[in-house]
Amino acid sequence: MDFEIRKKRELLKYEENKAGGFVDPEVYELNDLINSLSSFYTTSSCAGRCIVISKKSARSKYRTTFHFKTHNPEEIPHITLLDYQFKDELWLMVEAANFHIKCKNLESAKILHQSALEAKLGYSKFQSVDNYPIVEIQGTTRLAIPVGIDGEITIKPQKIGSILNIAYELLLEEQERLSNWHTILTKL
Amino acid sequence: MDFEIRKKRELLKYEENKAGGFVDPEVYELNDLINSLSSFYTTSSCAGRCIVISKKSARSKYRTTFHFKTHNPEEIPHITLLDYQFKDELWLMVEAANFHIKCKNLESAKILHQSALEAKLGYSKFQSVDNYPIVEIQGTTRLAIPVGIDGEITIKPQKIGSILNIAYELLLEEQERLSNWHTILTKL
Repeated sequence: MDFEIRKKRELLKYEENKAGGFVDPEVYELNDLINSLSSFYTTSSCAGRCIVISKKSARSKYRTTFHFKTHNPEEIPHITLLDYQFKDELWLMVEAANFHIKCKNLESAKILHQSALEAKLGYSKFQSVDNYPIVEIQGTTRLAIPVGIDGEITIKPQKIGSILNIAYELLLEEQERLSNWHTILTKL
Repeated sequence: MDFEIRKKRELLKYEENKAGGFVDPEVYELNDLINSLSSFYTTSSCAGRCIVISKKSARSKYRTTFHFKTHNPEEIPHITLLDYQFKDELWLMVEAANFHIKCKNLESAKILHQSALEAKLGYSKFQSVDNYPIVEIQGTTRLAIPVGIDGEITIKPQKIGSILNIAYELLLEEQERLSNWHTILTKL
């Protein structure tokens, strides 16, 4: 199917998701900019986030419960780790910004990929190289802390604030990268 | 330059690195298998590792000091976190297996990429799609814990063992993925 037809159909779906509250407001502007470029459209987007989840074990892939989720660094200092009820493991994580963008051809995909690397979104790669390649845009932030094991908090109470401050700084940095990328994209 | 000539040159360098002790013995077998296939050669390889590093701050990109490094899960329980001298931050990390493989063409790159996904090396992507594309093989393991901040350990002493056990399990899982990938590669 033609790239333009696919794009039109996908953007209709995107607007529906937006109306339904399934798109983070933090990425509206970036998504709109990308989608205004004729060679690209977004198929997923996340501005980076801080989450607290509980799960059965480190090797279990299923996130049984989300206790907290934010894209806003300013909310991180207010996380009350000690208040969460969990049975096995509790994890505090900062996940990097992450976008999947469908491209008209390999040449346009390369240009997009390069723009992300310039913005220090350093884990950006080509996810698929079939017709209409997909570029995955990704920052380098990694924070994954088992803050609870066997139902008990692992962090010294007096150090929880410092740990949350690191999460805050990392998410802030991730958003700075996105802001730089936005500037670079406007010049494409 | 011709793929075969590049490969020959790169493999000479690889053998030199191996002789110099700069290649992890854990990946000899996988590297040899990949390099025996006419469409591929490895340009970097890591079986996944557990490290303890100290650095100035979470946002600082430079790993100032390596205190500990292993590719062997069995060594992880013997890490003595409390013995490390550090001034600012101390991090315990498990890094996923990571290979960069140069491919003869996009078709062979796709086959290699698919083989890695089948082995659940789920963050495998195309790093470059120029002439002779590079596939990055990567597992999904992420553990990044600031176990020390401002020169002080953040983890409750009685929980250090459980934290190290999670690191052990994650590195073990990463090696199981590599072992599965080896089996899949032998059938290519």
